[in-house]
Amino acid sequence: MENGSEPATKPILQALAGTVLTPPPVWLMRQAGRYLPEYRRVRARVSGFLELCYTPELAVEVTLQPIRRFALDAAILFSDILVVPHALGMDVRFLEGEGPKLEPLRRPEDLAKLRPGELQERLRPVYETVAILARELPPEVALIGFSGAPWTLACYMLEGGGSKDWSTARRVALGEPDFFGRLIDLLTESVGEYLLSQIAHGAEVVQLFDSWAGVLPEAQVRRWVIEPARRIAERLREHAAAVPLIGFPRGIGPLYPAFVERVRPAGIGLDTTVPCGWAEAVLGPSAVTLQGNLDPVTLLVGGPPLAAAVAHIEETWRQRPRIFNLGHGILPQTPIKHVEALLSHLHSPGR
Amino acid sequence: MENGSEPATKPILQALAGTVLTPPPVWLMRQAGRYLPEYRRVRARVSGFLELCYTPELAVEVTLQPIRRFALDAAILFSDILVVPHALGMDVRFLEGEGPKLEPLRRPEDLAKLRPGELQERLRPVYETVAILARELPPEVALIGFSGAPWTLACYMLEGGGSKDWSTARRVALGEPDFFGRLIDLLTESVGEYLLSQIAHGAEVVQLFDSWAGVLPEAQVRRWVIEPARRIAERLREHAAAVPLIGFPRGIGPLYPAFVERVRPAGIGLDTTVPCGWAEAVLGPSAVTLQGNLDPVTLLVGGPPLAAAVAHIEETWRQRPRIFNLGHGILPQTPIKHVEALLSHLHSPGR
Repeated sequence: MENGSEPATKPILQALAGTVLTPPPVWLMRQAGRYLPEYRRVRARVSGFLELCYTPELAVEVTLQPIRRFALDAAILFSDILVVPHALGMDVRFLEGEGPKLEPLRRPEDLAKLRPGELQERLRPVYETVAILARELPPEVALIGFSGAPWTLACYMLEGGGSKDWSTARRVALGEPDFFGRLIDLLTESVGEYLLSQIAHGAEVVQLFDSWAGVLPEAQVRRWVIEPARRIAERLREHAAAVPLIGFPRGIGPLYPAFVERVRPAGIGLDTTVPCGWAEAVLGPSAVTLQGNLDPVTLLVGGPPLAAAVAHIEETWRQRPRIFNLGHGILPQTPIKHVEALLSHLHSPGR
Repeated sequence: MENGSEPATKPILQALAGTVLTPPPVWLMRQAGRYLPEYRRVRARVSGFLELCYTPELAVEVTLQPIRRFALDAAILFSDILVVPHALGMDVRFLEGEGPKLEPLRRPEDLAKLRPGELQERLRPVYETVAILARELPPEVALIGFSGAPWTLACYMLEGGGSKDWSTARRVALGEPDFFGRLIDLLTESVGEYLLSQIAHGAEVVQLFDSWAGVLPEAQVRRWVIEPARRIAERLREHAAAVPLIGFPRGIGPLYPAFVERVRPAGIGLDTTVPCGWAEAVLGPSAVTLQGNLDPVTLLVGGPPLAAAVAHIEETWRQRPRIFNLGHGILPQTPIKHVEALLSHLHSPGR
């Protein structure tokens, strides 16, 4: 690492503390995943996807795989955002090629089926994975923990699986705000607890994934995305002040500044659709560290478009504390040599 | 109409010319559609959805249905964005519950299968529908024509149907820019011709729907969304200067101002995710008329949330030339009485 001159602090932690590093530290959303043959081999050994998430030995292995291959500055805990609904007692299944299926919550009474008291016990294997990773990671690589955000978790819990437009969740959020508010409150509590426990077991950074924030209109973004994130951020500041939070309210576009202002995360994950120059301009007055936002399709395509896109992000944000990342997860068909090329462009610009 | 004092000009045309009208003129995307029982009855009489689009008598009937029921200021031609690929010679089918299916273009040679020379002949029934509507509409109601925009049409033509993330189209756009550019050029030509012919047959306003503009990163939005729209707008200004264009680059968020600046449409359709106050602030310096942007889920839910959302939009844009609309199409389950309530809130605020 070129930042080895400051061995006491890992580059990602420096960047999140506001230091401008060039080249910037880098990690990639879904860096442990199907594009890696060694991941596919491990995946083939277990029958269900959740089994992989809940078997510390295997979750540690797949978390470390991309770190062994690539010069990445962070490992992100291998898990899934749906472990929280699962740990709350919901039936969650991952069907091959179909995505997740849950027995959805349909009415306020269904909230009584959730078991927040059992959350910590059921998530114990995840904490064990975090603890092992904290011991085994190379000293310069940071360990990132994460959780799905309340809105996105509520989407799956109400729809019973993925959705094109999340119209059931949106309808309940707007039309049954008492029911929905109780669900969000419960999730806000659970997510806070989950992240604090990951931190207690060794996570050095935590990211809050609100993957479906972008389907809501402004008033609902403020109520169901920004406000729960603010409460989670406050709780982390109170109990784990040294650990930076990265918010990722994917797709909220013009409301990114409102998110940053209210939540005050150390870092903000910008999705692929956010213009870099616009982000620099509107988030300039805040101290937030920018993270993102290469389009995974660009990484898939590689070649000159990849070189140009990396150069554009770096040129635009060069005076900014930043972490290089994708704006969405790596696509399964991505060639490994394109990831290598990305890191080479980043570490040896102009070559 | 309360604007009957200016009988020579229809309210929507006044608003698009920059006049502030309170209450604003209103129409609703997908106002002719499955939420109306009279639509479902007509739909049941034809075997295929395209047959409905291509049978002038029936297309006229369903276009007029919402005008008979509601105090709307415009009728929008009943058709589908996929008539353009169909008229270019592609096989397009609408399968019940599955959405459209096309035989996708896979390689540059496939462009030779497209027949732009036959476009106008094959779209003749649509023009006939426009001509009948122009004669039959009540005098205060404007006739809106429309087309899908090149990027969105290319998405369907390359994917062969709907897609969650349009990754094939995005990959081709980035990785095969010659092939993709030729397709976009052909579509830009075709869409311009199509809109000009709708105008020649009596359309008084045209809207350009770029439904999937929101999946692209900035550079690609500028190249494949904004630039084709600019060329279409220029062509309309040259040959049909009196007819206003409404752009609807759905989901481009922070890039709406760039779209307005480059394309210079008379009106800009804002999707549900655009904060009204932000739009007012960033589009303030331009002369553009705002259109939107009630969330269709709010219309579905009705009640106090609907009243509050209508009041919020109206309050925020009260000093602005504007057209009230949804930010996306009406959902099929929408109760008709909610549409009536919306119009009542708009026409009698505070009651």
